Amino acid sequence: MRSDELGQELHALVERLYPLCRSITGDGVRSTLAIVDELIPLTTHEVPTGTEVLDWTVPREWNIRDAYIADARGRRVVDFQASNLHVVGYSTPVDATMSLDELRGHLHTLPGQPDLIPYRTSYYREDWGFCLTQRTLDELQEGQYRVVIDSTLADGHLTYAEHVVPGQVADEVLISCHVCHPSLANDNLAGIAVATALARRLAGTTPRYTYRFLFAPGTIGSITWLARNQERIGLLKHGLVLACVGDSGALTYKSSRRGDTRIDQAVRHVLATSGRPHRIVDFSPYGYDERQFCSPGFDLAVGSLTRSPYAGYPEYHTSGDTPDLVKPEAMLDTLDTLTDVVGVLEGDRNYVNLSPFGEPQLGKRGLYDALGGWTDTKQAQLAMLWVLNLSDGGHSLLDIAERSGLPFTAVVAASDALLGADLLKEI
Amino acid sequence: MRSDELGQELHALVERLYPLCRSITGDGVRSTLAIVDELIPLTTHEVPTGTEVLDWTVPREWNIRDAYIADARGRRVVDFQASNLHVVGYSTPVDATMSLDELRGHLHTLPGQPDLIPYRTSYYREDWGFCLTQRTLDELQEGQYRVVIDSTLADGHLTYAEHVVPGQVADEVLISCHVCHPSLANDNLAGIAVATALARRLAGTTPRYTYRFLFAPGTIGSITWLARNQERIGLLKHGLVLACVGDSGALTYKSSRRGDTRIDQAVRHVLATSGRPHRIVDFSPYGYDERQFCSPGFDLAVGSLTRSPYAGYPEYHTSGDTPDLVKPEAMLDTLDTLTDVVGVLEGDRNYVNLSPFGEPQLGKRGLYDALGGWTDTKQAQLAMLWVLNLSDGGHSLLDIAERSGLPFTAVVAASDALLGADLLKEI
Amino acid sequence: MRSDELGQELHALVERLYPLCRSITGDGVRSTLAIVDELIPLTTHEVPTGTEVLDWTVPREWNIRDAYIADARGRRVVDFQASNLHVVGYSTPVDATMSLDELRGHLHTLPGQPDLIPYRTSYYREDWGFCLTQRTLDELQEGQYRVVIDSTLADGHLTYAEHVVPGQVADEVLISCHVCHPSLANDNLAGIAVATALARRLAGTTPRYTYRFLFAPGTIGSITWLARNQERIGLLKHGLVLACVGDSGALTYKSSRRGDTRIDQAVRHVLATSGRPHRIVDFSPYGYDERQFCSPGFDLAVGSLTRSPYAGYPEYHTSGDTPDLVKPEAMLDTLDTLTDVVGVLEGDRNYVNLSPFGEPQLGKRGLYDALGGWTDTKQAQLAMLWVLNLSDGGHSLLDIAERSGLPFTAVVAASDALLGADLLKEI
Repeated sequence: MRSDELGQELHALVERLYPLCRSITGDGVRSTLAIVDELIPLTTHEVPTGTEVLDWTVPREWNIRDAYIADARGRRVVDFQASNLHVVGYSTPVDATMSLDELRGHLHTLPGQPDLIPYRTSYYREDWGFCLTQRTLDELQEGQYRVVIDSTLADGHLTYAEHVVPGQVADEVLISCHVCHPSLANDNLAGIAVATALARRLAGTTPRYTYRFLFAPGTIGSITWLARNQERIGLLKHGLVLACVGDSGALTYKSSRRGDTRIDQAVRHVLATSGRPHRIVDFSPYGYDERQFCSPGFDLAVGSLTRSPYAGYPEYHTSGDTPDLVKPEAMLDTLDTLTDVVGVLEGDRNYVNLSPFGEPQLGKRGLYDALGGWTDTKQAQLAMLWVLNLSDGGHSLLDIAERSGLPFTAVVAASDALLGADLLKEI
Repeated sequence: MRSDELGQELHALVERLYPLCRSITGDGVRSTLAIVDELIPLTTHEVPTGTEVLDWTVPREWNIRDAYIADARGRRVVDFQASNLHVVGYSTPVDATMSLDELRGHLHTLPGQPDLIPYRTSYYREDWGFCLTQRTLDELQEGQYRVVIDSTLADGHLTYAEHVVPGQVADEVLISCHVCHPSLANDNLAGIAVATALARRLAGTTPRYTYRFLFAPGTIGSITWLARNQERIGLLKHGLVLACVGDSGALTYKSSRRGDTRIDQAVRHVLATSGRPHRIVDFSPYGYDERQFCSPGFDLAVGSLTRSPYAGYPEYHTSGDTPDLVKPEAMLDTLDTLTDVVGVLEGDRNYVNLSPFGEPQLGKRGLYDALGGWTDTKQAQLAMLWVLNLSDGGHSLLDIAERSGLPFTAVVAASDALLGADLLKEI
Repeated sequence: MRSDELGQELHALVERLYPLCRSITGDGVRSTLAIVDELIPLTTHEVPTGTEVLDWTVPREWNIRDAYIADARGRRVVDFQASNLHVVGYSTPVDATMSLDELRGHLHTLPGQPDLIPYRTSYYREDWGFCLTQRTLDELQEGQYRVVIDSTLADGHLTYAEHVVPGQVADEVLISCHVCHPSLANDNLAGIAVATALARRLAGTTPRYTYRFLFAPGTIGSITWLARNQERIGLLKHGLVLACVGDSGALTYKSSRRGDTRIDQAVRHVLATSGRPHRIVDFSPYGYDERQFCSPGFDLAVGSLTRSPYAGYPEYHTSGDTPDLVKPEAMLDTLDTLTDVVGVLEGDRNYVNLSPFGEPQLGKRGLYDALGGWTDTKQAQLAMLWVLNLSDGGHSLLDIAERSGLPFTAVVAASDALLGADLLKEI
């Protein structure tokens, strides 16, 4: 597929998922996963309400059909059908008439961004509310309003899904993204789209690592997954949480809690040698599900890749986060970066130089220019010298790429040539 | 007390102490300590001349009543009554008449600062001398001069004093300042005043640590204290040497020899989060009594807090170091900084998160906003997340404050809330 | 000798060596070593063709008497007698007439530097060729050319030489420079000249370390030396590879592979305290014979000192690298730097302070000013305080010089004074 076509396809997926009203449970999540399942086969898990998961409990399932505020003439002044952000997530059912003053305690606006609807939830305290623009609120007349939320909050299930690409070894790479946000495009439909595309790129290959893609509601979803997969945690060697990967900002890598793991090194190297503008930030215990994967009991090697960072753009968590904010070329750029990171994880090896005393004579093995005296040694030859010099057991190919400043691919090519000449041995 | 009143009170103490002629021994020190004793109860120690203290010996005691140089007409051209800096400290008695040429070998001036009298001493070689301004020297006519120093240098005692605020544990915090300088205000009457004020702030409290305030002559005083308290050294966990804490320069923290002790970390954190301009400098083996506390045999966790650093202002060790150089608001600022440092030492703890797998659900414990979706997580909640994430046994609250960039007080408040919810345990 | 005379003498040596046609074997190397032997006694080694040395084999010996390309009228358009760079090193004999087109495959130019002849070799693949300026090539007319290379490539020897200054201990300092380049002045006749001058400075002294000067062809020469001296490797404690030490660029120190060895620290300190502009660069596995000494099997403490770095000036490996490029004052400056580095290696010691509790009283030992109160403590006294404070077994004098920022010589003088007062003991 041509890359511009792939970009358009990713964007079409974002647009298709955008209208669905997702939350941490409910049919919006199921519909979302069903669409992803058309592209990559998913194993979907339904976890009953009340299940104990680590320190949490799976909540009741929430579904909503309609909601509005209507004025005395029956005109819908706030309408869920126009935007599912209008209803506070997990709002309990209501059907009442009340004065504007009574209603105000249930209304949420962004006074500083008067044309945007905020995104609000109330998962763990029973309540109801509406979100609207400040401009709409300002125009409401005093008087009586009919308030309707046609929702259900009842025992049911929490839904999440996995897609696994089996590898040569049981050790796993986790790619995780949250699927609980209603009509917010960059956060996180872009993440779902890019994760899906990465899975498709791996389809049909047999990578070294097993790749596990996790599509789960934020916080409670990753906590549920962790609770149900404790025996698997030891296999999880590297991981990335994807969010906000479609806006036009520069890529941002938030390091794992440990900060010096192989995934941290791999992402940093790919970004540093890509020429892309980018940011590397330290771990902090807020943001997305890296909060859970990097809690001190697990302390996994999981970083987070975004473009604009968490809460780092003005449309974040508002009705301004539409598919227009998400750019096909930005999603492609994130996907290519991820592909390079996967390439590094896949290709990284530890070798020892079998001829460590002095340089081995590369020329007699056909690995070095016969004509000497050049002032510009070729990259391939430099890469071989670096691999030979640092392959002492203590440096992996990624370490060598970082130390030398050479692209990882050049270092791998050099190690392949040296392996072919029996000058290296894997350890 | 209002802070401006406290500032005035500190300055009044500096002014009251200023005229006394202090040296490393003698009645000037005793009078100084008697005035401090009016404010905080002191235990005064008198150590006899000849006592062996580490590599040193307590010298003879020096006292002085009068001294002058008079011209042929009997007019005092240099007069101890006008400034006690006019006499070289520890000058032996003299009563003689001599030509200006004979006298010159005993005269000390500052040619580069012709209006200032230098401060000079000769503690360990018997000698006598006068200090005067270059301008005065230039005006002296040839001729005979009467030279009188009415001093005594005789067996006696070295005097130092301690004030102790008992704590809940025997481990100690040392606050040390030198009391041996004659009429020099910033160096170190300001240090005496600020140390006294800190002791008064602690009065009536029962802090965790025991706080020991040491008022001793420089070098020989701290060496004497160290020699006589060797069994106590192991209890001294943190310490600060105070000097030059009243000038209008920015605060300067000179790290302990080890450089990475808790006191270093505490002062750096307080300064970094205070918004105050400040300097952090590495340890060096000259300056004040940190030289002795940080000698390699002791190597204590003792840093030094000054405003302008040691020898770092033009009036240093001259008659220009008057009470006018010392500002009430600068001493208050130093005092407040010290109070914050004490707060950090007192409040620092090591906890372990009792719910380390995933984040514990703070909402059900009333510790987290029920309404979700905010883009500006509140500092109190951030602080709880940081404390939970880093409380793995390897990070104290101060470590967490440093890593998170949050104020120490916010981190302590968060840990208190989490303790109340049984989510932390002290180790 | 006055330093300008010494500079002229060094330059005269470069000029004398310049015309000789050196290669990795052959009489050019022997003639070069014979000239050096006039200045410092050399032990010359002849290693037969075919000798196995590590992963390499000593090649056949190459000698050349004449070579040219003559046009149809017999005029030499390219003439070895004008510049030995005109012939590709190790060219096999040839005597033929051919068209310009046939000849082109054997001609090497620098199109980007059309007035310079490149330096090319073909040590390990039998071939022949000529190097010429692009301008000469452009002027050649179509037609037949007589091509003559009067060379021999036959079993013989590889020649290298050593000069040893015996020290008090068997531990060695290696100074190595390559002697295989034909008429290239900065690379590396300047290195030969400066190494020779350093050896002369050491002549007649009995230094602590044994100093070994190695004059060997690049790569194969150092590999041969390493192969024949494996039992000596453990004695080689510090080393420097000298190359390009005569141009007017700033000094460049390329760190050893380990990067934190004593030689790295010594050179960095000398450069940092010299006030000279300079560069410190990390190790990389290309450049000069540090490639071999720092191969992972040996991993010796050998850095490389150059002025302009390897391949770092436009005339590098071209006919532009003439004696004019080499400056007497630059070679002197390099020599003085090396002398200071030797001084550091020779003078570095580890002491323990025998009076580590508090400062020892320096005044009673005559080591400290009797008159106190000075604001400018003298460097000699500061140096003593630093030596006393850091002589805890973990810091050598060089460590102390680095930490204090004082010149190494001041630290040594201080330690000598303290030794004289029985305040230090060597460990």
